[in-house]
Amino acid sequence: FDDKVLREDLHGSAAIGHNRYSTSGSSQNEANIQPFLVTYKSGQLALAHNGNLSNARQLREMLTRRGTIFQSTTDSECILHLIAQSPHEDQIDQIQGALRDVEGAYCLVMLTHDKLIAVRDPNGFRPLAIGKLDKGDGNVAYCVASETCAFDIIGAEYVRDVEPGEIVVIGDNTVATGDFGSYRFSNKRKHTPCVFEYIYFSRPDSMIFGEMTDKVRRKIGKQLAIESLPPRDERGKRVIVISVPDSSNTATLGYVHQAHKLKRKDIRYEIGLIRNHYVGRTFISPGQDSRERKVRSKFNTVRGVLKDRIVTVVDDSIVRGTTLRLLIRLIREAGARQVHIRITSPPVMHPCFYGMDFPTQEELLVSKFMDENGEPDIDAMGAWLGADSLHYLSVDGLRKAVLKANRSASGFCHACFTADYPVPVTLGVRKEEND
Amino acid sequence: FDDKVLREDLHGSAAIGHNRYSTSGSSQNEANIQPFLVTYKSGQLALAHNGNLSNARQLREMLTRRGTIFQSTTDSECILHLIAQSPHEDQIDQIQGALRDVEGAYCLVMLTHDKLIAVRDPNGFRPLAIGKLDKGDGNVAYCVASETCAFDIIGAEYVRDVEPGEIVVIGDNTVATGDFGSYRFSNKRKHTPCVFEYIYFSRPDSMIFGEMTDKVRRKIGKQLAIESLPPRDERGKRVIVISVPDSSNTATLGYVHQAHKLKRKDIRYEIGLIRNHYVGRTFISPGQDSRERKVRSKFNTVRGVLKDRIVTVVDDSIVRGTTLRLLIRLIREAGARQVHIRITSPPVMHPCFYGMDFPTQEELLVSKFMDENGEPDIDAMGAWLGADSLHYLSVDGLRKAVLKANRSASGFCHACFTADYPVPVTLGVRKEEND
Amino acid sequence: FDDKVLREDLHGSAAIGHNRYSTSGSSQNEANIQPFLVTYKSGQLALAHNGNLSNARQLREMLTRRGTIFQSTTDSECILHLIAQSPHEDQIDQIQGALRDVEGAYCLVMLTHDKLIAVRDPNGFRPLAIGKLDKGDGNVAYCVASETCAFDIIGAEYVRDVEPGEIVVIGDNTVATGDFGSYRFSNKRKHTPCVFEYIYFSRPDSMIFGEMTDKVRRKIGKQLAIESLPPRDERGKRVIVISVPDSSNTATLGYVHQAHKLKRKDIRYEIGLIRNHYVGRTFISPGQDSRERKVRSKFNTVRGVLKDRIVTVVDDSIVRGTTLRLLIRLIREAGARQVHIRITSPPVMHPCFYGMDFPTQEELLVSKFMDENGEPDIDAMGAWLGADSLHYLSVDGLRKAVLKANRSASGFCHACFTADYPVPVTLGVRKEEND
Amino acid sequence: FDDKVLREDLHGSAAIGHNRYSTSGSSQNEANIQPFLVTYKSGQLALAHNGNLSNARQLREMLTRRGTIFQSTTDSECILHLIAQSPHEDQIDQIQGALRDVEGAYCLVMLTHDKLIAVRDPNGFRPLAIGKLDKGDGNVAYCVASETCAFDIIGAEYVRDVEPGEIVVIGDNTVATGDFGSYRFSNKRKHTPCVFEYIYFSRPDSMIFGEMTDKVRRKIGKQLAIESLPPRDERGKRVIVISVPDSSNTATLGYVHQAHKLKRKDIRYEIGLIRNHYVGRTFISPGQDSRERKVRSKFNTVRGVLKDRIVTVVDDSIVRGTTLRLLIRLIREAGARQVHIRITSPPVMHPCFYGMDFPTQEELLVSKFMDENGEPDIDAMGAWLGADSLHYLSVDGLRKAVLKANRSASGFCHACFTADYPVPVTLGVRKEEND
Repeated sequence: FDDKVLREDLHGSAAIGHNRYSTSGSSQNEANIQPFLVTYKSGQLALAHNGNLSNARQLREMLTRRGTIFQSTTDSECILHLIAQSPHEDQIDQIQGALRDVEGAYCLVMLTHDKLIAVRDPNGFRPLAIGKLDKGDGNVAYCVASETCAFDIIGAEYVRDVEPGEIVVIGDNTVATGDFGSYRFSNKRKHTPCVFEYIYFSRPDSMIFGEMTDKVRRKIGKQLAIESLPPRDERGKRVIVISVPDSSNTATLGYVHQAHKLKRKDIRYEIGLIRNHYVGRTFISPGQDSRERKVRSKFNTVRGVLKDRIVTVVDDSIVRGTTLRLLIRLIREAGARQVHIRITSPPVMHPCFYGMDFPTQEELLVSKFMDENGEPDIDAMGAWLGADSLHYLSVDGLRKAVLKANRSASGFCHACFTADYPVPVTLGVRKEEND
Repeated sequence: FDDKVLREDLHGSAAIGHNRYSTSGSSQNEANIQPFLVTYKSGQLALAHNGNLSNARQLREMLTRRGTIFQSTTDSECILHLIAQSPHEDQIDQIQGALRDVEGAYCLVMLTHDKLIAVRDPNGFRPLAIGKLDKGDGNVAYCVASETCAFDIIGAEYVRDVEPGEIVVIGDNTVATGDFGSYRFSNKRKHTPCVFEYIYFSRPDSMIFGEMTDKVRRKIGKQLAIESLPPRDERGKRVIVISVPDSSNTATLGYVHQAHKLKRKDIRYEIGLIRNHYVGRTFISPGQDSRERKVRSKFNTVRGVLKDRIVTVVDDSIVRGTTLRLLIRLIREAGARQVHIRITSPPVMHPCFYGMDFPTQEELLVSKFMDENGEPDIDAMGAWLGADSLHYLSVDGLRKAVLKANRSASGFCHACFTADYPVPVTLGVRKEEND
Repeated sequence: FDDKVLREDLHGSAAIGHNRYSTSGSSQNEANIQPFLVTYKSGQLALAHNGNLSNARQLREMLTRRGTIFQSTTDSECILHLIAQSPHEDQIDQIQGALRDVEGAYCLVMLTHDKLIAVRDPNGFRPLAIGKLDKGDGNVAYCVASETCAFDIIGAEYVRDVEPGEIVVIGDNTVATGDFGSYRFSNKRKHTPCVFEYIYFSRPDSMIFGEMTDKVRRKIGKQLAIESLPPRDERGKRVIVISVPDSSNTATLGYVHQAHKLKRKDIRYEIGLIRNHYVGRTFISPGQDSRERKVRSKFNTVRGVLKDRIVTVVDDSIVRGTTLRLLIRLIREAGARQVHIRITSPPVMHPCFYGMDFPTQEELLVSKFMDENGEPDIDAMGAWLGADSLHYLSVDGLRKAVLKANRSASGFCHACFTADYPVPVTLGVRKEEND
Repeated sequence: FDDKVLREDLHGSAAIGHNRYSTSGSSQNEANIQPFLVTYKSGQLALAHNGNLSNARQLREMLTRRGTIFQSTTDSECILHLIAQSPHEDQIDQIQGALRDVEGAYCLVMLTHDKLIAVRDPNGFRPLAIGKLDKGDGNVAYCVASETCAFDIIGAEYVRDVEPGEIVVIGDNTVATGDFGSYRFSNKRKHTPCVFEYIYFSRPDSMIFGEMTDKVRRKIGKQLAIESLPPRDERGKRVIVISVPDSSNTATLGYVHQAHKLKRKDIRYEIGLIRNHYVGRTFISPGQDSRERKVRSKFNTVRGVLKDRIVTVVDDSIVRGTTLRLLIRLIREAGARQVHIRITSPPVMHPCFYGMDFPTQEELLVSKFMDENGEPDIDAMGAWLGADSLHYLSVDGLRKAVLKANRSASGFCHACFTADYPVPVTLGVRKEEND
């Protein structure tokens, strides 16, 4: 979608889009690219889906047995067929019926010939917000997005979140009166938004689950400082704290400010890694093929900052550990005396079935460092990484910090740290979903 | 498909293809391009369809009501859904069941993971032949094609036609033993192959419905000469007969040879029109938009041949008449004294519901020249075209000529000339199918 | 240049184009694609060149020694640099000066900001004609083209040829008054137009060197019939004469009509080979790589015509012989009893340095069949081709036939048959030009 | 150049590249894209040019008068023609001769069939460094680059700068012995590297003109703090200092650290602007067409940081001022009480003729705010921007800060601030070069 396309080729009064490496089904397959657009008995319907269905395999098998032909290999297409095969006449009834068969994490945005429909799953795993844009000529436009920073970019105003278990309908009437249709298809009380959105995925300038990510991330950084500060330099020199840009910048500032509060005046925030911006996010690129080359071309060290210093690196999480290990090597090559790693989350130990694109459990760094009690050997991991010390934020510390920033949230999904899955996942799916 | 693609990117032991302006559903829509490839409960299935279903609208309505989502706007996709929704386990059973609901004209070529399946409708409207290629290394390959000239190009040998109402299955076994599976899903005795394949569509070097098109076309040309020769030049000069290249070349030779037999030694075959080969066939290009420009850049006259002569032009058919009218103008500009038009078919007066891509009835030339008895006014048409005389082959003459060449064929579909449709068409479809 | 480009993206009142496999310099190299457009001290200049300079290597060496940087590897670019480096102010003076250094065959079409300039070399090797298009609104447009059939396609009228050694200038004045500027840069009396244009290259509907190609080609065919008719079929059956379509069609008609005049009533013109029109001309495709596959997919036989007959094939020339050899095999496979080859030109024995894209001398068929006297062994060639007999038109017969059709032409270049080169070629170039 | 191209399509032992919006000649014109590759009397030569020739117009006129045809509209092509037209045989002699006619700023990288040649102009306006890569198998590769951060990315080691007035030749011999050829074509003593490379253009992790940009930029930030700190918040709240990411990040850290040294403990470094990384640098995009939309989609504010605060924004320079003005508006919308702007350079008041792509003088913000003495009215500019205060670094302060960081550099070009041009520019060029 270059400028020309956006200005000249896109017409109409409503649009939906999606920017996603599909988390189930290969994103190399063009048919899997969202949004999907279909024509069915009630007219045209376009759908974009963020998240992952935890019963996708069962749904697909059931639909295939019925004689359904799939155009893609994604879980999202199941939702479309369930809607089309519904016996109801009314589209909202069709959707409500279809969602009764669906389990897992999903934010849906659908477009019909006259309505924009937004849906959030009963657990509220993923964020979805409603925005409003005053177009200046007395007209108002409504939009929905995963992250509210998208509203800021187009000059729209945040209205509220789509609630877990809610279907929001924006139609001609909405523009005229400001009222959305709202339908409940679940009254589940206990919501379990994904804590990893705060830790890594969302941007600091986004309001997520009712709170600014920036604020939550600072609290997390502060809690990490309370749990583990770096040693002092016995030569009396300043100890440097740097972030792995850009996702850890905010938490690093929190970490440093808390250190100052704890009377560690020798600690200084610095910029020790420069990011080369023509390379995409590492985490989200599928396959490990060219990972190493990508890392090398993604970060560069600032020698004048690192040379001869005790360096503390704040990072948000460790998945495979390959990026961080190479970074530590680069930092040492730039002359650092010591390298201490502080992670703003607990160890990622379990697969996510709700849409976070972690690698298979075997590829996770912790899998290679489990002791006889089934606990990760943090020191051994630190040694493998080449760090002088490694500290992860505790699960309790994470809970405390998040709740301090966002009291309204009743609970969070921490399954990737604790294996405490809020929605059951059958074993068969567990193995295959991540192929 | 350029050379590189054919040599490097196409792998495997079997393939199907299709080269068709879709006759129902817009060919501009990429989703309508055949073959279709789907995955369903019994595995992968690819399908290419030549012809038109006469109950396409009813099938689509029925399937949509059941909750079926269509990927394309073509009639061909209905067949796929009928197969996928069949309660049978065996693919041949599924296909036989699906075809029971389908009416009209269809030659199907399907590919599964281990079989090539070819089907011809019970009426045998369109041709479909089986070929065999000795690969020299003791191996044999089988192929099916609408026109046998495709076999000659790759060096394959014609084996036999797929029979009307027959499903032919070519599998690993076929290659080993030379036996196809053959299944009958209809025992209809009266076949109605399309006579227009002989008149215009097929190539002279193709064996169609059991006879070479070249032979049939010569007989047609001879019959036309029996019915109507051009006048003599009273100055004693030769009378020139030219064809509209290339589809009328063969019939024109038949016309001239018969004229010689009828003692018209003054008649001479000549090449008076040169075709510019970088322009595609006019007949098959959808929409009338740039037709006139295309005609002008498609034919050029040879003045030395036409100047001061009585010229007879043999053409295969008149649809809209716009091409021929412009040709006559060009021939007169080249100096022809008189221009006589001889057409190797009766007037096209009725729509084809079986796959021949005629324009709507209103666009047909005859529609504009109907007299009070519902008969076309041939003289008025000739005058509009700018011809000194116009003669169409009679329906009886056509029947006689075709049967003389091909005695084995029991009957033919002449509905476009006579409105005698072998498979009933409901009125609703009749109107909309040709939108 | 698809329709969209032609209608929407091309503006202005004048244009030049070129459709050519570059005959010196590789056509794979995008920089070699004509027309060239340059900006130099007198403004913009675009140039398209048909033909070949026989002193290209010397010109390029001279210009390179002067410090000239070439953008392409073609001979045509030399002309541009000679013009730009001319000391004259006036563009016509610059061109006249530049052409004094240039030798060989060239038709040039140039475009400046206000003039269309057409040039033909002093020998007149290649054709170049002026056309005039009445645009209906009182305005007149002028055009130049190698073949006059281009005028017919756009509805323009042939005015006259650009004369050998003439520079024709079409400007605003021309459109207003109908006068071109005309400048002579050579008064050479003896012109040597290329006879191969008549034999093969030009279209029958083009007026070339003052006469219709169609007429010349018929005379050539008639002369061939005088020189060598096929034997009779002792069974009293008709003897078939077919052409290799489309370049030999016209000559074949001449051959057959002359045969009838010579009382050979048993001879009949037939269409025995069908050309598949999605494949380009064989002759002009560079490299032999995929030639065999191309031939197979280019022609198909009509069995009903050929079976059990004595078949005479009329073709325009034999270069490598590979196409014809395969054709003869196909004709025999179709059941022909005998195959007699009649060629409408003498054997091609010598390279062309004036723009006809023959292969190297070693690749010519005749090179492999030279007897001790340096004469080609025609019988041995026929045997290699698989023909029952082979006859070439004699050089004298060719001269006679061409002059009969076109008395105005004073002489022709037959160097490819006789090595009688009208413009001297240094040995060094001779070897390398055809690499 | 995607991964596939880099791995599969690029062969050979040496390569050059260029990543540049051409600063003279339109970059829309494909012919202007560097590197240029030409063939001339001494073989092939490829050239990439960073910088701008100040006598480009005179060179082009001289060359055009000689009959030279240009392929592009860039100044860089002049160098190639001067080399090709040199009477010398030896390539180094040709280059030395050519450079005698050339004035202005240029770093050249050239590739011949066996040598990589790097050149830096006598003033040393732009940086150019030599790197060395140990390939692990005993082999060594050499490379040159404008910024040394490129060496880090590929794991190469910085060797030294190409000196002003030096031609460095890297050939087979270099790889074997580690010696470059080095030729002097100028002995100018006074070098004038561009100070704007330190202020804005280079990356902090690059060694430029013998010193790390990071270090210089910190000194500049410190000097700015000495010159002008923001007011205190009378409510006792912290005063926030934010940078415009990413080019001002380092200088902002220097500013904050110096503020702390100056006992302003109330000042805190914060991240208040988030950059959207899918949008390119504003400064370098030619034309103002879509600038405003780009800015909006490039930065987003962090409300939790800015709300109710006195905010100080550190930016590197003001060119048109449009980006900064919009940023100030966004910061106020996020709730800032006051917005103070501190710029790490003096006002840009004069055009750069040495390669920095400033807009025309009329488009510069200062041009609109000149008082009667020809001095910029800083307060009026601050008001137009919407800032509570605006302070530029003084020219003296800039000099002092740069020299403190890099004592080895004898002098710098500050012409864009002071109009003190080290190489004379004729008035005619001055006007047209920036069209």
